[in-house]
Amino acid sequence: MKKADNIVVIGGMACGPKAAARARRCDPKARITIVEEGANVSEATCGLPYHISGVIEKQRELVRRKPDFFKDILDIDVLTRTRVLSIDRQAHTLELLNLKTEQVSTLAYDRLVLATGSTPATLGLKDSGLGGIFTLSKIEDALAIRDLLSRNRTRKAVIVGAGLIGLEVAEAFVSRGLEVTVVEAFDRVLPTLLDSEMAAHVARQLQSKGIKLLLGQRVSGVDGDRQEWVQQVRTESGKLEAGLVLLAVGARPNTGLAQEAGLAIGPTRGISVNHYLQTSDPDIYAGGDCVENVHRITQRKVLVPMGSTANKHGRIIGTNITGGCDTFPGVLGTAVVKVFDYNVARVGLSESQAREAGLDVLTCLVPGDEHADYYPGARQILVKLVADRDGLRLLGGQVVGPGETAKRVDVLATALSFGATADDLANIDLAYAPPYNNAMDPLHHAANVLRNKQSGDARALNPAEVRERAQSGVDFILLDVRTPEEWETGHIEAPQTRPLPLKELRSRLGEFQAGGEIVTYCKTSVRAYQAQRILDGAGFEDAKFLDGSISAWPYDMPDKEEARDSKLANIDEGATA
Amino acid sequence: MKKADNIVVIGGMACGPKAAARARRCDPKARITIVEEGANVSEATCGLPYHISGVIEKQRELVRRKPDFFKDILDIDVLTRTRVLSIDRQAHTLELLNLKTEQVSTLAYDRLVLATGSTPATLGLKDSGLGGIFTLSKIEDALAIRDLLSRNRTRKAVIVGAGLIGLEVAEAFVSRGLEVTVVEAFDRVLPTLLDSEMAAHVARQLQSKGIKLLLGQRVSGVDGDRQEWVQQVRTESGKLEAGLVLLAVGARPNTGLAQEAGLAIGPTRGISVNHYLQTSDPDIYAGGDCVENVHRITQRKVLVPMGSTANKHGRIIGTNITGGCDTFPGVLGTAVVKVFDYNVARVGLSESQAREAGLDVLTCLVPGDEHADYYPGARQILVKLVADRDGLRLLGGQVVGPGETAKRVDVLATALSFGATADDLANIDLAYAPPYNNAMDPLHHAANVLRNKQSGDARALNPAEVRERAQSGVDFILLDVRTPEEWETGHIEAPQTRPLPLKELRSRLGEFQAGGEIVTYCKTSVRAYQAQRILDGAGFEDAKFLDGSISAWPYDMPDKEEARDSKLANIDEGATA
Repeated sequence: MKKADNIVVIGGMACGPKAAARARRCDPKARITIVEEGANVSEATCGLPYHISGVIEKQRELVRRKPDFFKDILDIDVLTRTRVLSIDRQAHTLELLNLKTEQVSTLAYDRLVLATGSTPATLGLKDSGLGGIFTLSKIEDALAIRDLLSRNRTRKAVIVGAGLIGLEVAEAFVSRGLEVTVVEAFDRVLPTLLDSEMAAHVARQLQSKGIKLLLGQRVSGVDGDRQEWVQQVRTESGKLEAGLVLLAVGARPNTGLAQEAGLAIGPTRGISVNHYLQTSDPDIYAGGDCVENVHRITQRKVLVPMGSTANKHGRIIGTNITGGCDTFPGVLGTAVVKVFDYNVARVGLSESQAREAGLDVLTCLVPGDEHADYYPGARQILVKLVADRDGLRLLGGQVVGPGETAKRVDVLATALSFGATADDLANIDLAYAPPYNNAMDPLHHAANVLRNKQSGDARALNPAEVRERAQSGVDFILLDVRTPEEWETGHIEAPQTRPLPLKELRSRLGEFQAGGEIVTYCKTSVRAYQAQRILDGAGFEDAKFLDGSISAWPYDMPDKEEARDSKLANIDEGATA
Repeated sequence: MKKADNIVVIGGMACGPKAAARARRCDPKARITIVEEGANVSEATCGLPYHISGVIEKQRELVRRKPDFFKDILDIDVLTRTRVLSIDRQAHTLELLNLKTEQVSTLAYDRLVLATGSTPATLGLKDSGLGGIFTLSKIEDALAIRDLLSRNRTRKAVIVGAGLIGLEVAEAFVSRGLEVTVVEAFDRVLPTLLDSEMAAHVARQLQSKGIKLLLGQRVSGVDGDRQEWVQQVRTESGKLEAGLVLLAVGARPNTGLAQEAGLAIGPTRGISVNHYLQTSDPDIYAGGDCVENVHRITQRKVLVPMGSTANKHGRIIGTNITGGCDTFPGVLGTAVVKVFDYNVARVGLSESQAREAGLDVLTCLVPGDEHADYYPGARQILVKLVADRDGLRLLGGQVVGPGETAKRVDVLATALSFGATADDLANIDLAYAPPYNNAMDPLHHAANVLRNKQSGDARALNPAEVRERAQSGVDFILLDVRTPEEWETGHIEAPQTRPLPLKELRSRLGEFQAGGEIVTYCKTSVRAYQAQRILDGAGFEDAKFLDGSISAWPYDMPDKEEARDSKLANIDEGATA
């Protein structure tokens, strides 16, 4: 009889415990050990910003499983406070250091799992040795921040990095009464996730909650007070007072052990694995934040550390290290984040990512209601789709707003997993009843706008293009086809702007010269597109509309919120595309 | 130059106006006319139950567009209160009756669109001539019911039919203070949408709100009082007092005009159309409730009248009647309905539908939280998946509960549109953050349970099978592996039930005989499956678990709600599958 396999898992957070538990369910006989450097296993690290805010008050909610669960239920040994010093691949052993006793020992393995996670980047600022500078990746980080906040030492916080964690913590800090400044090196918030015009809407939401944004600025250093506590953050353009600094500038995969053991490291600096999640050593598997993934759209290697991916990795590894055969198809870079009253979600390639990848793309900006507008409580969302121009294969999507956006991005994630086109998306039989959706989901409309653009029926300029034309004094007409009442609530302020209610357009076509450029807009582009088609039909050769119209317009405009949210126009904005 | 096309659309509700508006956007020159028998066009009929309840108070919210919108904006003529008496396909003309003036006229067409909708079935009960008997398909129906309710004539209502409209109106009636009985000929609520064990959860929700359900009973007649007002409803088993009766027993497609014109009618009694939505006459298209659709899973013809489908049809027809070429891929029978505090959603084939279609299926019942349970407010959902046993191709899904279910069904609808398997579903990169989801969506878990079942690792009995075994006195052990505290909150009452907390199972295996059948259960089946694997590993040959455990158990059980909703066990129920 074959002797029982000896499985060792390094890392006890997400991927590691999942791999171990799955291995146990696949193989009742194996010896399984989890080695974890920290005091806990199974920390719910994605909940940490909510522990800072107090939304999740109890620390024990964030420790999902205790070591005795693994022993009693799963017959898995857990060694906490234990560091792996090295891997001897020849001997199939690990050298361990018990951090409590400082004893060194050796542990044998037949199959090894690296789930070593990642470490927050610090831009060297933690080397300053000053107090009050934090990263956030463990419960102890959150506890330290909570402790500082409870002592009321400071009211001014600077967050470096406007990514997912930076924005989640920004909200938490505001809820704790801090004055918050977010500094971001890129020119927009969520720069790796959103295109500029979508990020601008998120930025407005942050600013409306009192957060100060410094975009396109690098942090160059920190200065402390006499107690060696952080006092200010230096940026390219000046100094920011701060008694609390959070560094949220991404994470780098923990690959030290793997590198020292001679395992292949990929171009993204994550551990290289095949689609079985096997490293360059067939007896060693790796998953979670420490590995690189394949992007399902580009097929390129990417580093996208996410708890959702780590869990999927864990199950696949647990299957494969016990003789099974499962594969991981890759990631889509899907993400969702709560930013105060906005739900911000995205998947696949942004327009800028698609262009960087050399793709010729079509995009659309389509505002919509989360459910039937005649059913109470409907909140707006804004959909951006990115598709390959030729075949309209969907490449990515971004959905932002106070309404339901995660559902739309999950539908897109599913569609992208199967290489869907806009034609496919337009006719998916999504669930409809007034409390849940419109007869046509905003995604259906967006897909149809892409189809209209590809056929040439619809021609749009994006907000940046319209603003540039307006500001550069180009000779064109920016035609506001809303009602006079809507015009009064606010409109795009430019010398080229002219009001002309849609219902008068057919009878007043004589006011325009046939050759000139006319760009129409309304509230959501339904009427603007209709206006463009009327102008087309009347022989005007250069009619376009402003993509997404006022609802997608991310720039300042007098009384803008009222115009964006106005219900006046709903009756005219129903069916589209 | 070719003369402008003359397009006539019969029917002004959903498909018709959409087809007309799309036709206008595709062809600025065509003459387009909508002919509608009623006084309004573009009624939001899906909102009618919410107008009865008062959730949507203003009638004008339900009239989406006025005829002058069509004229002013779209240059489309709308003839309301106008009946089409006949179609002369040879002459390409319609005979019209103006219901206001009673004048008859003739209208020519080049292309004709039939969007004639459907008519509620009445089981002959409306022929009684009694007052107080209603169907619900138009605003005037809702107004008549509101008028009756405002006069406080009756407190007792009977709804015949427990389909979508029946249940929506049941909630509306309860909110208006009525005593409501729902009579359904099938043995469960939502019989064409849900399997029995899922429908049972919806039934519990209805009963908890005071609604009386009479299932498996046909209505045989109605009796009136001296004022010719309905007084009672007769069923097979007795009489029900009622001063208000709603007939919600489905709708039949309005095919009279089509039939008289000699157009082909399909096996489901809907108008037969090809995938261009063209009838047997190439100049006549049809869409919306009056046509039959192709089911994307079975490829069979089905009658599934839905506003969402009607809108998609409209766009395709608008394209095709103006020289374009678009096709409709069919429907999935997707539906969602609010039933008080429950969100009830489904897609594709139910288990019973799949078995009727001759398919060999695997199913699973998987409870889950709508988002991370450590983030406040997570509500439960229950997922049922149906898949082809051989290749695990997904055939359908049902998701029910107080938590978010429409998102999951929309993901499934998208997956089903591409022939996804459980393997595909398990690794889709869905959006995760604690306020929105778990690191693994309940659908991921459900897909993995199907995979575990197919591999033979997981073996489950469904609730009906377990209850039958328990009631028939079969010799098996029903092993409750929850904690003693959970056991105290309630357990499945059967002579075969035994408590044995999971953490003691490994040390107490000696208490069981190797050959006997052991069925384990817990709260959500995570621990029950683990227990089954422990028993497997110890050599027990007939261990299974109760699919979905107590959270999916639809039958009475002492203190059941507390056991189902208990948070005690959450820490043991995280990772699964």
